[in-house]
Amino acid sequence: MSFNKIAIIGVGLIGSSIAQAVRKNKASSTVIGYDLNQEHCDILKSEKITDSVTDSLQEAVEEADCVFLCVPPSKIVSVAKETLSFMKKGAVLTDVGSIKLEILEKLEKDIPQGIHLIPGHPVAGTEHSGPLAGFAELFVDRWCILTPSQNCDPQALQQLSDFWKKLGSQIKIMDAHEHDLVLAITSHLPHLIAYTIVGTAVDLEEDIKGDVIKFSAGGFRDFTRIAASDPSMWRDILSLNKKAVLEVLGRFSEDLSSLQRAIRRGQTEVLYDYFDRARTIRREVIKEHQDIPPIGPDLDHESS
Amino acid sequence: MSFNKIAIIGVGLIGSSIAQAVRKNKASSTVIGYDLNQEHCDILKSEKITDSVTDSLQEAVEEADCVFLCVPPSKIVSVAKETLSFMKKGAVLTDVGSIKLEILEKLEKDIPQGIHLIPGHPVAGTEHSGPLAGFAELFVDRWCILTPSQNCDPQALQQLSDFWKKLGSQIKIMDAHEHDLVLAITSHLPHLIAYTIVGTAVDLEEDIKGDVIKFSAGGFRDFTRIAASDPSMWRDILSLNKKAVLEVLGRFSEDLSSLQRAIRRGQTEVLYDYFDRARTIRREVIKEHQDIPPIGPDLDHESS
Repeated sequence: MSFNKIAIIGVGLIGSSIAQAVRKNKASSTVIGYDLNQEHCDILKSEKITDSVTDSLQEAVEEADCVFLCVPPSKIVSVAKETLSFMKKGAVLTDVGSIKLEILEKLEKDIPQGIHLIPGHPVAGTEHSGPLAGFAELFVDRWCILTPSQNCDPQALQQLSDFWKKLGSQIKIMDAHEHDLVLAITSHLPHLIAYTIVGTAVDLEEDIKGDVIKFSAGGFRDFTRIAASDPSMWRDILSLNKKAVLEVLGRFSEDLSSLQRAIRRGQTEVLYDYFDRARTIRREVIKEHQDIPPIGPDLDHESS
Repeated sequence: MSFNKIAIIGVGLIGSSIAQAVRKNKASSTVIGYDLNQEHCDILKSEKITDSVTDSLQEAVEEADCVFLCVPPSKIVSVAKETLSFMKKGAVLTDVGSIKLEILEKLEKDIPQGIHLIPGHPVAGTEHSGPLAGFAELFVDRWCILTPSQNCDPQALQQLSDFWKKLGSQIKIMDAHEHDLVLAITSHLPHLIAYTIVGTAVDLEEDIKGDVIKFSAGGFRDFTRIAASDPSMWRDILSLNKKAVLEVLGRFSEDLSSLQRAIRRGQTEVLYDYFDRARTIRREVIKEHQDIPPIGPDLDHESS
C-alpha cells in the first residue's frame, strides 16, 4: 500500500473518482473527505463515497500520508498554504489541476522540511461535475502526469506513482512548463474553441431567426458536449495558463488564417494536404488507447 | 411504398446505409447500385448490399422512380447532368450532399419537363467511408433536410419525404441558402477547426520535440476523431460552400479574438459569461436527441 491514509480536499468529479477508485483497488486503507460545499458533504455521507467526512481541514489532513487537493484550479495555491501548516512530516502534498507551473512556482519555496510537494495531473475527466459524477474507472488507461521539482524526494515520487498505477493510470514524469504547453494545445485550446463556436452558432441563430442548433451534425454535437463543461473551471484554467494558451492560440490562428486564405483563393490542394496530414494523427491516438471516452454515470439524461 | 425502384449512384457510407435501411424498412422493392470504384462494386455483390449492381449508368437509372446521387460533393452536378438524360418521366432526382444552393442553381434550368429535382441532405454520418462503413440505422432520429425549388411538384416532395421518414428520419423543408449557412456553422466550420487544431498540435510536437498527441485528453480526442474524416470530401465541401464558410469563419474569428483579448487582459468575467451561455446549448442538443453519436461497425479498431 503506497499510502495508508489519504485526504481528499474538495470532492467533486475527480476527488469522488479517486475515493471510489481507491476503495475498488484497495489502494489505501482510509480515505477522509473534506469539502466546503455542504451538499457535497451530504452526498459523501449518504453514498458512503469516503470513509469519513469532516468540516475541519486540520482534522482532514493531520494524519494523512498523502493529501490530494482536488479544489478548483484558482484555489489550489491558497488551500495548499492553509493545508501545509497541518500536515505531518513525511507526508506528500499533491493536486489534480490542469496547470502545473504555477503550483510549483508559488508553493515550492514555502514547503516545510520533510513535506513532499509533487504537483500532479490525471489527464481524465468528463463534462460533468460534482461527487455523483465520479466513478472508479475514470483513471483506467489514462495518463497521470507528475511534475516534481528537481530536488524532489525520489521515494515520495515512487509512492505517488505507485498509487496512481493502482488506480489504473500510466505515469509520465514531465517538466511543469512542458506540461502546461502540451495541455494548452490538447485540452485548454480545444475547450476554448468549443465554447467559442457554440457561442458563434447561437448568435447566428438569433441573426437569421431560424433553427441552427437543432441540426447539430457530427462536428457540432461534439463541440456542444465539450462546451457543457464547468464554465468557472475553464475560466480559471484559461486565465491561470495564460502564457501557454496565448502561445498555442497564436499558432492556431496562423494555421486557420492560412486555410481561410486557401478557401478564399480556391487552393484546394493546400486544404487536402493539411487535412490528410491531420487525419493520420487519429491512428496515433487510437494506438495510445486514448480514443475511447470514459463512460460514467449517464447524467445527461437524468438532469432536468 | 414511396418509390418502387430506386437507384443509388455512388455507394459509399451514405449510399450503402440507404440501401441497407431500405431493405430493413421495406421502403422500396428494388435497389440498384452503381459505382465507378470496382472494389465498391465487388463489396456490394459479395455482401448483397443492393439487389443488383451495374457498371452502366443508363441501366442503373432508366427504370428508377427515384435516383439518389451519393457521389462526392464536387461530382454531383456533372453526374446529375449525365443521369438526367437517362431518367424516365415522373421520376425524382435527389442527392445527399452537404451543400444545396450550388445543386439548385446549377441544375434547375437543365431539368427536363416531368423530372423532379429535389436536393436533399440527410444530416447523418460517421468519420468512416466506403460501403462497409454503412449501416441501416444511420438515419434513425436524424434530420433529413430537403431544399426544393419554389415550383417543385408537391406530390414528388411528399413521396421523397415519406421515403426518408420510413428510414427513420425527421424531415425539414428549408431554403437552400439557409441550409448552406446553417451547415457551415454546425458541420463545415467544426470540421475545418478540428483539422486545423490537430495540425497545429503536430507542428508543436515537432517544435518542442516532445510528446503531445499521446496525452490527448477529452477535448483533443474528439477533435482527432472529427479530423479523421475523408480529406477529399472536406476539401470539396469547404470549397463548394466557400461563401457561407467564409461568412461563419469571419464571425468565429471575431468571437475568438474577443476571448483571446479577455484572456490576455485578465477579464475573467467576460470568459465566464461567454462559457456559461454556451453551456446551456448542450441541453437543447440533448432535447433534440441529436447528442448520441450513431454507432456503426467498429472500423477504428479493425483498421491497420
